[in-house]
This record gives sequence, C-alpha cells and structure tokens, in this order.
Amino acid sequence: MRRPTAAVFVLALAAAGWAAGPGPSPARQAAPPAGTILASIDARTDAYAAVAKQIWDHPELGFQEEHSSALLQSTLTAAGFTVTKGVAGMPTAFTATYGSGAPVVAIIGEFDALPGMSQAAGVSERLALTADAPGHGCGHNLLGTASAAAAIATKEWLARAGRPGTVRYYGTPAEEGGGGKVYMVLAGLFADVDAVLGWHPSDQNSADASSTLANIGATFRFVGTASHAAAAPDKGRSALDGLEAFNYMLNLMREHVPQDTRIHYVVKKGGVASNIVPDLAEGEYQARHPDMRVLQGIWERILKAAEGAALGTGTRVEHHVTMSYWNVLPNETLAAVQHRNLTKVGGVIYSADEQAFAEKLRATLISPGPALGSQAAVQPLRSGLVGAASTDLGDISWNVPTVELDAATFVPGVPAHSWQAVACAGSSIGIKGMIVAAKAMALTAADLYSDTTLIDAAKEELHRRRGGAAFTYTTLAPPKPPLDYRR
Amino acid sequence: MRRPTAAVFVLALAAAGWAAGPGPSPARQAAPPAGTILASIDARTDAYAAVAKQIWDHPELGFQEEHSSALLQSTLTAAGFTVTKGVAGMPTAFTATYGSGAPVVAIIGEFDALPGMSQAAGVSERLALTADAPGHGCGHNLLGTASAAAAIATKEWLARAGRPGTVRYYGTPAEEGGGGKVYMVLAGLFADVDAVLGWHPSDQNSADASSTLANIGATFRFVGTASHAAAAPDKGRSALDGLEAFNYMLNLMREHVPQDTRIHYVVKKGGVASNIVPDLAEGEYQARHPDMRVLQGIWERILKAAEGAALGTGTRVEHHVTMSYWNVLPNETLAAVQHRNLTKVGGVIYSADEQAFAEKLRATLISPGPALGSQAAVQPLRSGLVGAASTDLGDISWNVPTVELDAATFVPGVPAHSWQAVACAGSSIGIKGMIVAAKAMALTAADLYSDTTLIDAAKEELHRRRGGAAFTYTTLAPPKPPLDYRR
Amino acid sequence: MRRPTAAVFVLALAAAGWAAGPGPSPARQAAPPAGTILASIDARTDAYAAVAKQIWDHPELGFQEEHSSALLQSTLTAAGFTVTKGVAGMPTAFTATYGSGAPVVAIIGEFDALPGMSQAAGVSERLALTADAPGHGCGHNLLGTASAAAAIATKEWLARAGRPGTVRYYGTPAEEGGGGKVYMVLAGLFADVDAVLGWHPSDQNSADASSTLANIGATFRFVGTASHAAAAPDKGRSALDGLEAFNYMLNLMREHVPQDTRIHYVVKKGGVASNIVPDLAEGEYQARHPDMRVLQGIWERILKAAEGAALGTGTRVEHHVTMSYWNVLPNETLAAVQHRNLTKVGGVIYSADEQAFAEKLRATLISPGPALGSQAAVQPLRSGLVGAASTDLGDISWNVPTVELDAATFVPGVPAHSWQAVACAGSSIGIKGMIVAAKAMALTAADLYSDTTLIDAAKEELHRRRGGAAFTYTTLAPPKPPLDYRR
Amino acid sequence: MRRPTAAVFVLALAAAGWAAGPGPSPARQAAPPAGTILASIDARTDAYAAVAKQIWDHPELGFQEEHSSALLQSTLTAAGFTVTKGVAGMPTAFTATYGSGAPVVAIIGEFDALPGMSQAAGVSERLALTADAPGHGCGHNLLGTASAAAAIATKEWLARAGRPGTVRYYGTPAEEGGGGKVYMVLAGLFADVDAVLGWHPSDQNSADASSTLANIGATFRFVGTASHAAAAPDKGRSALDGLEAFNYMLNLMREHVPQDTRIHYVVKKGGVASNIVPDLAEGEYQARHPDMRVLQGIWERILKAAEGAALGTGTRVEHHVTMSYWNVLPNETLAAVQHRNLTKVGGVIYSADEQAFAEKLRATLISPGPALGSQAAVQPLRSGLVGAASTDLGDISWNVPTVELDAATFVPGVPAHSWQAVACAGSSIGIKGMIVAAKAMALTAADLYSDTTLIDAAKEELHRRRGGAAFTYTTLAPPKPPLDYRR
Repeated sequence: MRRPTAAVFVLALAAAGWAAGPGPSPARQAAPPAGTILASIDARTDAYAAVAKQIWDHPELGFQEEHSSALLQSTLTAAGFTVTKGVAGMPTAFTATYGSGAPVVAIIGEFDALPGMSQAAGVSERLALTADAPGHGCGHNLLGTASAAAAIATKEWLARAGRPGTVRYYGTPAEEGGGGKVYMVLAGLFADVDAVLGWHPSDQNSADASSTLANIGATFRFVGTASHAAAAPDKGRSALDGLEAFNYMLNLMREHVPQDTRIHYVVKKGGVASNIVPDLAEGEYQARHPDMRVLQGIWERILKAAEGAALGTGTRVEHHVTMSYWNVLPNETLAAVQHRNLTKVGGVIYSADEQAFAEKLRATLISPGPALGSQAAVQPLRSGLVGAASTDLGDISWNVPTVELDAATFVPGVPAHSWQAVACAGSSIGIKGMIVAAKAMALTAADLYSDTTLIDAAKEELHRRRGGAAFTYTTLAPPKPPLDYRR
Repeated sequence: MRRPTAAVFVLALAAAGWAAGPGPSPARQAAPPAGTILASIDARTDAYAAVAKQIWDHPELGFQEEHSSALLQSTLTAAGFTVTKGVAGMPTAFTATYGSGAPVVAIIGEFDALPGMSQAAGVSERLALTADAPGHGCGHNLLGTASAAAAIATKEWLARAGRPGTVRYYGTPAEEGGGGKVYMVLAGLFADVDAVLGWHPSDQNSADASSTLANIGATFRFVGTASHAAAAPDKGRSALDGLEAFNYMLNLMREHVPQDTRIHYVVKKGGVASNIVPDLAEGEYQARHPDMRVLQGIWERILKAAEGAALGTGTRVEHHVTMSYWNVLPNETLAAVQHRNLTKVGGVIYSADEQAFAEKLRATLISPGPALGSQAAVQPLRSGLVGAASTDLGDISWNVPTVELDAATFVPGVPAHSWQAVACAGSSIGIKGMIVAAKAMALTAADLYSDTTLIDAAKEELHRRRGGAAFTYTTLAPPKPPLDYRR
Repeated sequence: MRRPTAAVFVLALAAAGWAAGPGPSPARQAAPPAGTILASIDARTDAYAAVAKQIWDHPELGFQEEHSSALLQSTLTAAGFTVTKGVAGMPTAFTATYGSGAPVVAIIGEFDALPGMSQAAGVSERLALTADAPGHGCGHNLLGTASAAAAIATKEWLARAGRPGTVRYYGTPAEEGGGGKVYMVLAGLFADVDAVLGWHPSDQNSADASSTLANIGATFRFVGTASHAAAAPDKGRSALDGLEAFNYMLNLMREHVPQDTRIHYVVKKGGVASNIVPDLAEGEYQARHPDMRVLQGIWERILKAAEGAALGTGTRVEHHVTMSYWNVLPNETLAAVQHRNLTKVGGVIYSADEQAFAEKLRATLISPGPALGSQAAVQPLRSGLVGAASTDLGDISWNVPTVELDAATFVPGVPAHSWQAVACAGSSIGIKGMIVAAKAMALTAADLYSDTTLIDAAKEELHRRRGGAAFTYTTLAPPKPPLDYRR
Repeated sequence: MRRPTAAVFVLALAAAGWAAGPGPSPARQAAPPAGTILASIDARTDAYAAVAKQIWDHPELGFQEEHSSALLQSTLTAAGFTVTKGVAGMPTAFTATYGSGAPVVAIIGEFDALPGMSQAAGVSERLALTADAPGHGCGHNLLGTASAAAAIATKEWLARAGRPGTVRYYGTPAEEGGGGKVYMVLAGLFADVDAVLGWHPSDQNSADASSTLANIGATFRFVGTASHAAAAPDKGRSALDGLEAFNYMLNLMREHVPQDTRIHYVVKKGGVASNIVPDLAEGEYQARHPDMRVLQGIWERILKAAEGAALGTGTRVEHHVTMSYWNVLPNETLAAVQHRNLTKVGGVIYSADEQAFAEKLRATLISPGPALGSQAAVQPLRSGLVGAASTDLGDISWNVPTVELDAATFVPGVPAHSWQAVACAGSSIGIKGMIVAAKAMALTAADLYSDTTLIDAAKEELHRRRGGAAFTYTTLAPPKPPLDYRR
C-alpha cells in the first residue's frame, strides 16, 4: 500500500470552496431548469478530473481503499454533505447525505482497483507503471467521482428548488469481489431510499433496463489422507480424487441446468509432489444465472455434488462462499427517465489528439466491435438484455428501484479489465465520459424530486418484478465483510 | 427345463445293487488297506461314468438342477446313504449320510451347469448341441459324481473297518453364482463336521494349500427423472450420470485399495433412446480380494461411492448383492494328507485315441500352457498360492477345515468355462480324471478316520489362520437363497 | 406388416371421379377467386377423411409405408396427377405432378407412423389396438392427406385459371428418423421448385417464420480386447472405458459449445458379464443446434473426442451417422402470405361431442398449456422462434424457400408423440384440423402463382439468410437411404 | 548456496597425509588378510566422521553439490587416487581411480541432500537449523564418505597384495531426481567395469538380492485457449479439461496394467482465476513398475492417453520427462559374497548415550517397525524382494553386475526422508553405520580381486537375467542432464 501524497490535502482544500459554488437560492421557487445542473458540473470539471486522477494515481484494492474513500469523503464534505464513515463494518464504506425527508435518492459510488493492472495513462501500448501493482481497469476512479459530481449538482438543484428531499451518496467499497453493497443492504442503509442511481464506465453511452448475471463464488477444499504413492497408495485417500470427482459431477450437471447457467472453476492446489498422495486439494468455483433465485437452487445441487464427491472418495470437503451477487433487477420506469436525460446530455466528442489516441489504441485490439465515433451517440433504449457481468448493485436493485447507465469512458471496442481500459480511465477521454454520466444522473435525480409519481411507478414495477409481497431478500454471502479477501 | 428320460430310472435301479457291492465285513477289525478303496471305485467306474454322462446330457442351471440332484440322491440312496433333500431352503440341495458319531467327514458335490455353453462331447471344434442352451463348462457333472463315488467307497471302508464315524455327502447347488453352500453353512449343516473334502475339475492333478479370491457381486440401479433431452434437459436428472459418476469414483478408488483387489463392472441398462434423459441405469459390479475381511471394508467404500454418486447427480441408488463368496482358507495339514494320497493314485493315462483327441483340441487353443503329458503327473505340493477364481467352498473353509484337490479332467491347457472344457467333461478323458479325484478323496477320508490327530491339527490350524477365537463368520449374501438368479 | 383391405380399392375408385370434380373451365380467364378453392376442399371432405382414416388404420413405420404411399399415389393419380414412384432410391417415395412450366410449387406429404404407439381413436384413455404395434402419434396420416387435398385444389384452381405453372406433391417417407427428404434433395428432385409448402399437425393454428434444431445422430461403437476381469485385467482393453472416456469428454465439452447446443446420449451395450473385460460398447448419440453449420463444427469436435477416447484407452472406435436434419430456415416472405391465408380460413370449431371428448382428454394431461378453445383461433404471426423439434423439412428449406404451418388437429395441450395425439389423429377433430391446413396451403399456392414477385422476394430472402452465393448444402447423412432403420 | 568454511581445507590437509596411512607394501605378496582392511578403516574413523559431518553441515541439492563433491575428491586425491571431475557433462560428477587393468571394481558414492529437510543432529525433536533449507534426510553424507573409505581401504589392500586390478570411486550427483548415474552410464564410464558395489543408509543391516521399482517421471502441460468463462465459454478450450480428461483415462488404465504398477500425479497449475477459461494446466506424473521394460510399454500408453485427452478437448499437450530410473537388477552371486562379508563385520553397537537417544527418537515415531536392538544384527540373506523405492543405481545394474547393501545408520524404525533420519545422519549413530558399510564393501572388493570366478559368475547371472544377448539398454531420460532441476 502506498501512502497518499500531500496532493490529497491540496485537493480537499480546493474542494472546501465548493459549497459556495454556483450558488443555490435560499428561497423556495419553481423547479430550476436542467440547465443549471449541467452548468454546475461543467464549472467544476477540472476539480472532478483532479479527484479522478488522484484516485487513478493511487489505485487501491477492495476494502483497502483508504485514501480513495477519504478523498471522496472530503470532496463531499466540502460540498456540504454530512459524511458517516466506516458503515456496515467496513472501514472504507461511507454515506454522504444532504437534505431531509422524502424522496430519498441514492447515488452509488465505487472506487476499488484491480490487482496487477498497473498501466500508464494515455499511451497505446502495454506499459505498467509498477510491475504487478493494481490499476483502475474498471474505471472506478471515474465511477466514484462522477457520482460525487452528480450528488453535488443534485444537492445544489435541491437547495435552489427549495423542495423537501434527500440526496445520499453511497461510498461502496470492494465491488470487484468483496461485495461492499451487500453489507450496506444488510445493515439497513437503504431502508429509507426511494430510488437508486448508478452508472458504469463503458465504451458506449446507454441507459437500458438491462440485467446482469447473479453470481455465487466459493472456494472448495478437499481434505484426504497423505501416504507414499508408490509404497502405500492404499493407505492414502487423495484429496485430488475428491476434487476431480466433484468437477466430474459438475460437468455432468451442465446438461441438467438451464442453458443460461454458467459453472466455471480452476484448480488452485492439486498436490505437492507426485510421489505423495495429496491430502489437500482446493479449487475456486463460480456459478451464475440470470436469476439469483434459480441460482440458489443450482447452488444447493453444487453443494451436494461436493458432498457426494467427498463421500465417494473417502475425503472431507469444506467450502467458503467468497461472493454472492444478485442479478440486477431492471426497472423500465427509471430506465425511460434515465435514457431521456442521457440523450439530452449526449455522447463524448473527441479532440483531434483524442481521436488519434483512440485510433492507435484500437489498433491494439483484436476485433474492436463498435465503430469509432459511436462514443458520440447515445444508444436506443433496450430492455430484456442480460449482460455477462455481475455486480453487487444487483443486491441493491432487489430492495430499491435501481437504474444504471453506461457512459463512454473507454474508446469504442475497449473492454473493461484490460490495460487499454486503464489507459483510458487515466486520460481526458475517461474524464469526458465521466462528465456525461454525472450530468445524466443529476438530471434524473431532479426529475424524480420533481415528479414523485415516477418513484411510485418504479416501486410498483419493483414490487411486480419481485413477484409480489412474498419476496424476501436472502444472500449466501459470508455473514461479515471479507475484509481481507485481497490480502 | 428338459424332462429326464427313462435312463434315469434304469441307472437308479442299477445303483440299487451297490449296497451289496464288494462287501463290508460286519465285524470289527483292523483298518482295511487302501487297496480295497481303490478296488471299490475301479469296480464301478462304468456306473459312475453313466451318472456323470447323464448329468452332462441334461445340463441344468443353478437352483434348477432337479434331475441332476435327484440322480445323485438316488445313487447315494441305493448305496446305503440316508438322504435329506431340500435343505437350507433350496429344493435341489441335499445331504446323504452314512454312519454315526465322530469324526464326521464331509465330501462336497456340485452339479450345476453354465448358460450358453452347450457343446458336443469329444469333438475338437465348437459345435453346440442346442443353440444357447447350458453346458457343463466347469465339469460339475464330474464333480458331483466323483464325490459320490468317494463317499460310497469311504462308506464301504468305514463299514469294513468297523470304526465309528460318519461320512456325509453334501449336494450343493448353484456354485456358479447362487452360492448354495453359503446357505448350507448358515443353516448350521456343517456344525458337526470335522473335515471337508472337495475337488475341482482341472487340466492338472494337484493338492495345494492354495486359496481363491473372496468375491462380492451386486447390481447397482440408479433412478433419475426422465425428460426430453432437447426440449427440457434441465428438468431431467440422468440416472446414467449417476452410474457414470459411480464408475468414475470406482476407477479413482483403484489407486487406493490393496493392489491385489479387483473391481470390475459392466453397464446393463444405460437409457432407452438418446432423446430422453434416462431415468434408469443399471450395472453389474464385482469386487474381489484374497481376504474377505479386507474385501468387506472395500465394499463399504464402494457403497459410499454409489451413495456419493447419487447425491451428487440428483439421483437415487439401490443395490442388490447377488453373490458373496469368501476366499478359500487353505489348510496345510489336510493338504499334506491329500497330496500324499493323490500322489499314490497318480495322474491320467491317455489311450491312443484320447491322445489324438487331446492333440487336436490343443490345436484350437491360443497358447496352451502346460505340456501335453503333464496330465499323467501329480504336481508338487505348493502353498501360498491364490487363484483368480472364486467359489462358495470358501464359506465352508472358514467354518470347518477344508481341503480341495484338482484332477486332470481337461486336456492340459484347456481352461474352465470353455467349449473345450465341455467337450472334455463329456468324454472318457473327463471320466478318467473324475476317478482320480474319487480315489484320492476316499483315501484321505480313510486316513482321517484312522488318525484323528490329523483332524485335531487341522482344526488347530484353522483356529490359528482365522486369527483365534475372535473370528465371527459373517456374509453379505442375500438373506434367502436367490433361487431365481438364473431365470 | 398388415395388408391393406379392400377399402383401399374402393377409395381409389371413388377418387377416380375427382378429376371431373368441381370442374375447371377450359378457357383462360382472370384468376378464379379463393372461394372456389375452399369449396373444392369442402366438397370432398368425406373422401379425404376416408383416406386419412385408412392410413391411420394401417400405420406403417418409416420406409415401410407401402400401402399408405400407394393410397396417396392412387388418390392423386385419380385426381389427374402424374405419379413417379420409388424416387431417390426409396420404394415408398414418390412425386405427383400437374401442369407445366414455372412457377413450380411443391406441397409436402408425410405418412410414416411411430413404433409402439398403437391407440384407439376418439377414446380418452390409453388403449392400444395392438400391443407394441405402431401408431400415428405425429398425425402423419393427416399430414399426407391434407397435402394431397391442397395439391388437388391447387391443380383445379390452376386449371381453371388457365395459367402456366406446376403443382407437385412430394410423398416423403421416413420423416421420423430415416430422412427421406434428404435423399430427395440430394437426388435433385427440388431443382426446379420455386416454393415449398408444408404443414404439421399441432394443438394450435399458426404460420410462423420459425425454425427447428438441426440434428445429427449417430451410433458410436468402441471395440476393445476381452479378458478375464479377475485373472488378467491387464491383458484386456475395456471398450466400456473407451465409451466412458468419450462421454467424459463430451460432458467437459458442454461448457465450450454455444449454450443452445444439445448433446445427449444413452449407453446401449456396456458389456456382457462383470467378470469379463468388455470388448464391445455402444451408445446412441445426438447433437443439436439452431444452425446446422455451427452443428457440423461441433460434430467435428465430437468425432475428435471419440477418437481421443479410443486413443487414450487402447480401443478402437467407429461411428455410423443415423440422422442428419438441417434446422428449418424460416422465410418471412412466405410466412406472411401463409399467415394471411390461415387467418382467412380460421381455426377449428368443435361440436358438442368433440368438446366433451376434448375435455376428457385434457383431464389425462399433467399440465395442458393452451386453453381449450384456442383451437378456434389463429395465433399471431411470430418470427425468431426456434422449436426444440427437428425435421428433414429443414434440408429442403435451405435449398428452396419453404414455409410450414401448424393446424390444430390435436386438442389444445396434447403433445405430439403421445397416445392422446394418436387418439385425436384418428378422430373427427383431427380431420377438421387437416381441412384447415389443406385450405390454407392451397390458398397460398394460388397466391404464389398469381403474384410471382412473392416468389422472387422469397428467393431473395433465402439467398440472404443462407449468407449469399457462398453457401453450399452439405449433409452428414449416410450416402444411401437407411431403408432398414426401423427393421 | 552457502560457502564452505575453512574446515574444508583443514580436512583436506589432514587427508593429504593418508596416502602414507597404514602403509602398503611395495612388493607383491599373497593376498593380505581381511583384518588389514578392517584395521585400515578403524584407524581413520575420525577423519571419515569429519568428512561426513562437513557434508552434513553443508547440505547441497542435486547438481549443486560443489563443496560436497570437492571434499570427497580431495579426500580421494590425498589417498592416492587420480580424480577426473566434471564427467558426463555434470560439474559435480567425478571418478577417482587407483590401479590398472582388470578386474575393475566400482564403488558408488552419492552426496546430494533433500530440500526443506534442515534439522539439528542428535536431538529428538523437529528443529530446523535453517528454515526451509536442505538437509541430509537420505543420509547421503554418510553414503559418499563410506564409499570413499571403502575405496581407500581397497586401494591399500590392492597395493599390499600386489595384484593387478583397478578400484574406481564414482562420485554420482543428484540421485534424488536428476539421475546423475544415468548420464555416467550413457557416457560409457562403466564400460570397463566388472562389478559395482553400492550401499544405502537404512535402519537395518542387510545385503539382499533385492530390487526396486523402475520409475519414469514427467511434467505434462496442456495448452488451451483462454476466454471469459461467463461471457464466452464457447470460445475457450480449457487446458484443465485436457488435464482432467488425461487423469480420467489414467484412472481407467489402472485396471488394465499389471497390478504392481504405480501411476501417481498431482496438479501443479490448474488455472488462474475462475472467471477465465484456463489456457494452461500442468501436472507432475510418475509411473513405476518392477521391470523397466514393462514400464516403457505402459509409458507409451500413458503418452497416448495424454494425446487422446488433448485431441478430445481441443487442446495441445507437451510433456517433459524429468526422471527415468531402471529398477535395480539384483545379482545373487554378488549378494551372497556381500552378505557373507556384512555378517563378518556385524551390526551397530550403541553406547548408553546412543541408546538413550534412540529410545527418545523412537518415541516420536507412530509405529516403529523393527525392534530397538535389531541394528546390532545382520538380516538373513533374502532374494526376490522389490522395494517401493527407486534409484538411478538401477541404470548401472543393467549394464554391470551390481550389489547394494544396507547399513543401520538410522535408529530402527526411522524411515528415510524424515527429520529423524537427518538427526541420525549427523550423529555418532550414523557414523557407526557408515563404518559398517565401508568395511563390508572393502571386504567384498578384496574377494572379487582374489577370486575372479565370482565376477564371471556375476556376469553370467547378469546376462541371464537381462534375457540374453538381445538386451539393449535404453532410457527415456532427457538427453542432457537436467542440471537445473532443483533451481
């Protein structure tokens, strides 16, 4: 872990002046026009860019985002938010609240980095800044910052409008595996929330009523009895046998689960030396499906396969769930509003330099799907899509109406979790996409305060999609946050 | 089942004259010389040959040996034995007893045939008498008859000697899978027996203190849930998956059992049509080991593998033990006596015709091991050998001191369960080997009555080999005789 | 095989009068109205019902449909068609042609039954007419007859219209596995055809641009080396090992094929006795995918898995393809026309008796999906659907623009290949559905002759869907029709 | 690697005086009595103990035994041997020769240590001197030194006897895996040798005509195609699938190899992260059998299983043989001589302190087999035994008559490769066992020079056991010594 530099404090001081920003009117008045929101964000683009760049410069892994979290907290505090930190048992989790009463609109921030993805910004070749160090391959430096910008602009609009209502920023750690949001949900931190706005860095601009795959991950460890493999193999019980029998039954199971299920695994420990019957074998396993409720049923069967393998090979098995993310429950009501606002904001326009960089970067991709230029457009509104990714935003979405948008922070064709994504997330292209996201979210928040029938409709849709009153949110996640999962 | 012909009755009448045979002396006297035993058997060779031929002509499968059993009963009754039939819940099982008091010497007879082995006698090519019909591929037509001859000669000697003692013939059905002897042991029919003499048709003459493999066989049936394999495979649970997972774990287990274990299986039912997820799958399994007590431990693990496979594949499993044969516990004390007597009797001398037939028959074998001519010799006494075969004589041998000899009823190189064996068992070569066996057993019985310290020593050896008083005979065999196992 | 009764000849005589039927006008004139088509079919409903009933009464398996084929041939001959029989090397395949020149419209007939499906007609319980005998569980008795009715009505319209054009009935045997149409395609019998009309009995009325799954089926046979499983397992090479290793790799492969692929198998031969290492093992395998071109690639991998399994287990493998059906390539151009005409004809109206029967029959179903009454409606036009079934109509559809419709010959909820389907196919309900199909097809044929731009558009669509000029039709089907596949 | 201390040089200086030792007579004379051999070794016990302790103090892994090798070289040079170092392409391999002409008797020395076995000497608890550092768990510090002592005593005897003949010490590195002897054989270094004497530290004294298991070890690496396991598993080809299919077929193969075969493996690389289809998987495999010629046939089948697995899973496989050790071919002729001399020398007599240490050490063993006190005896001569271990002495034994003895350097019950063995090998107990071995080997060498008919008989036995003139020595070992196998 590197130490934050003095720059953190400089930024925080700069941010301290924001509360006086473009100036909210103290008196009640008709809802201020959207233009003031856009102007508020435009006016502070450089400051937001500096925040995003600092986080990018100091990438921190899940649950270890001390300085990234602190920087966003100070930014929001400086803008007039009240921060509660260390919530839900996670030192780097926090909420930042402004206003009071309903409606309560939540805006979600993330800020964790990925291991081994260190990469120089704005260059079109693989070049690690620090070998094996983390990097922002998923653009969460932009994610957390844009959401803060959206929250601040919303706060100003709310103040200017003189309406009741609360805007709350959620600083959610460890999206890349630790599942910070799950614990914030379990801690009841979303109990009073009416709608949730999130976004994610992408190579296009879109606001769909789309979903993700629910995802359960675990480590399975088989324990056997060691013996000399040549002299006394009959005295041994191979833990690797247990693991391989488990894998075999998982592969048989593939035929007998819904076809959009995914089961995948790797073997992490498979014995020490070939002349010793292994007494320990361990693998990492994941199962995914578009519906967590279906997935939980499949997971029960996976556990039985593990038990059956242990029983049949004279070994013992234990498993530790490391991740449990619900699929995102789409909300067409909110998606329609978000899409309208994203269209209003528009896409990302490249400068000549950015265009040149984008072209070079695309030359490093094997088959860049979307055409260059598509970053300037907003995709049509779609529904029914299910992405192959998984996110702990899913857990929120089954408790509160949630909408997510994508903004083109990456050059078209650049996938998340690539060095190219890191290079974009640290460049002006990333900043431009981040600003698009901030504006679209703030406009949507304003719409929700202005017309609370939207919230009613969104809640009604959530109720319906969950299958009515019978729904109960449950999770297989470990009871306490796995704070050391990246150690 | 074919009906016995009138010949059966003719033979029985002929046998009726036997009780007056070479004439026992009513008065007590010194033990008669062995020569009288040999003479007794020689004098009736033709009658015994006729019995063996009738059984060969009417081969009957295990537990269906009505006429074979009846013929042996009538032969023994005619010779003065008292027959009890239908013992131990098996219609074709019987005992035939002569004399009273200790020592009680048992002589074991078998008479079941093998399915599909119909073959013409004395011809050197594959030629079924009746397609797919049974045949005496294991020479049990000779086995049951030689043992009867030995019992009769023993009875005459005993009568002549005027000694106390009992000779008892055991008519044991279904050696080829049903395990008649197991049920006779369980019924307590060997409770008063001091020593057991058995023999088996072979291609050599020997009397070793050798053993066999303990053997447990079972049917495992997996039950799943059928569904359309293209339209709804996720609704199905494949019984074949269960079976294949079981097999997989058995194959893993091979590394972790003693190396002289055997596990083998076939798949008998593996689904009906490829577009239906199979709801039924079934296999036949056997496990063997030189020591039943070790094998029972391995069997426990096999059952767990089956349960584990069912658990892991969402299926259900049931199993039915079809066979449980203990390994033969050798007795060196008895083997030494038997070997001495076999050596006294000598091997089988071929006529010119028999020699010509033997040469032709050997030409049909891929690699006939022992040399032609070796049937005339007696092999040296060996101990410590373990044959790959299995027999329900094993179950007797753990309860009473038991010795078995081999006699050369088959041309050297001819293996049991071959058409060549059927051809020999129905020819004069088979009869000659049968007479060797009868003589050697009767001589040994006489020795045991004459010197009961041999029995004491044999019992002491049994006690020691079983591991002392702690031994308890147990069996995994089905509680009742599987009378329909060949139906 | 049962002999057809005299009724066949009676029917044929009756049919002889048809050529003079409702009377075509000798002179050229404007296209006759659709009403004449409907009237033509209505007028002969009883005769068609009699044909369908005769075929139902004499169900014949694939490639053995001697009398069913002969009856349809005589019906068409009597109506003025020229029949060529025994085409493409299949004794029961035929074509029946009327007219000359383009456009050539093909109408497809099928007439094979399913094994073991014998069932009384019009009764609401399982009741086989002849135990284990075939039955029309797929309603092909109706299929072949309705298509003949459509061809005859089309011929009359064509004659009356005085237009150039050809209508050709294809008598296609062995749809249930033998793939008669594949061989008719390979023989070039569709070379001059402009459009193909087919239909299938169903429990609803619809004409969608839907598809089916391409399907390749084969027998894989592994050959090893037998040996005694206890005495010399190291001398054996288990064919069952080969099969199980093949299955193992297929199950691994499931993860690495497109998720809408299906691979399913059963084990038909897995060894004879557990004490013999199996030298023969055999299974039936199928693979399916919505696109035959993708499936052929997957099939290549399946063959490699088989080879790899043989290589790795010291066995040998051979396979015999038993079925290769392309997915149906939908044609939206033709589907739109067909749907319009089906809507014009309307659904099936039950009498009170039929309603009562339908209710009783539905009571035997576990969960009848569509509501009773839905048989009276026509479903909206859909596209993009892929059914889980497979048909050799697929092979035609990649060579000529093809459209298929469903007509409600079965009570709503009754699945094909059920005894309930047999019961419907032999009852008045089946006949009513058949008439709906006949009318809709004939109307569509008339439209195609009347407006040949439809054919041009359909061909253009076919060209586009096939991927342009580069497409070449290939098949993995056996080179000659497997005429004995049901023997 | 640690640097040798000054002690090395001190020892070498001391050794320099040895050549003048007990004094060989320059003139020819009758063979000197065995007593002079024993006296020669007794006289230098302290010096040999110092050499053994130095090597123990500086344990070096295979092919890295720079200082151990140098110390033995200087010891032999000082004693009048001519050293050739760096032979057969291995820097730490050497020969040390004295005398000329036939017979040539080779004495084998080893000196490599085992990884991770660092342990304090003479203490009865686990106590590493340096964590994770190597240690002499196989007692090779004693092995190399005793052989040097035997060679020196032999040289003196030879000089005193005035006979022609050569004694040659072979400094053979990397017995624990690298197979130094294999390369010395391949380099022809044993071409002129008439007999080979070896020994090994043990917990008993014995000289049997026993054998070991031939052993082939290899790394198998499967290479597949990576892809995102949730988004595009069909684009991936899992290398782990390849590895698991290979393992599956190996487990099937267990039934079909001779029962005394061993196949064992561990998985070393089984994928990086569960959401990526693994493109690399790697395992370590070993196969063993009492006869290398049988094993080479099995190895061919193992290679085919790997190829089959790759073929069937769309992956690629490569393998690298890391070890190929022939089974030791026993020589009863030499074993009889060696056993006689070992008996003459007698076993190891413990002092009171040693006895106390031995008792404490045995208390740390779970079930110490042989009784304390058995180290003082010499075991009876046995033949036909096959140990479960493997050694590259096997490769020599198929080229030259070879005999090996065991001496009780370890407390009875202490197994090789245990910390207890390290503790013994560094203590006075180890030294005493070493002296027993040195004496017995030197006596045997003297016998061979004295009676060359023994060598003729040993060669004749080798010829016969190899199967006559047809035998050709081949090896699957890598063509060049794997000098970096422990790096």
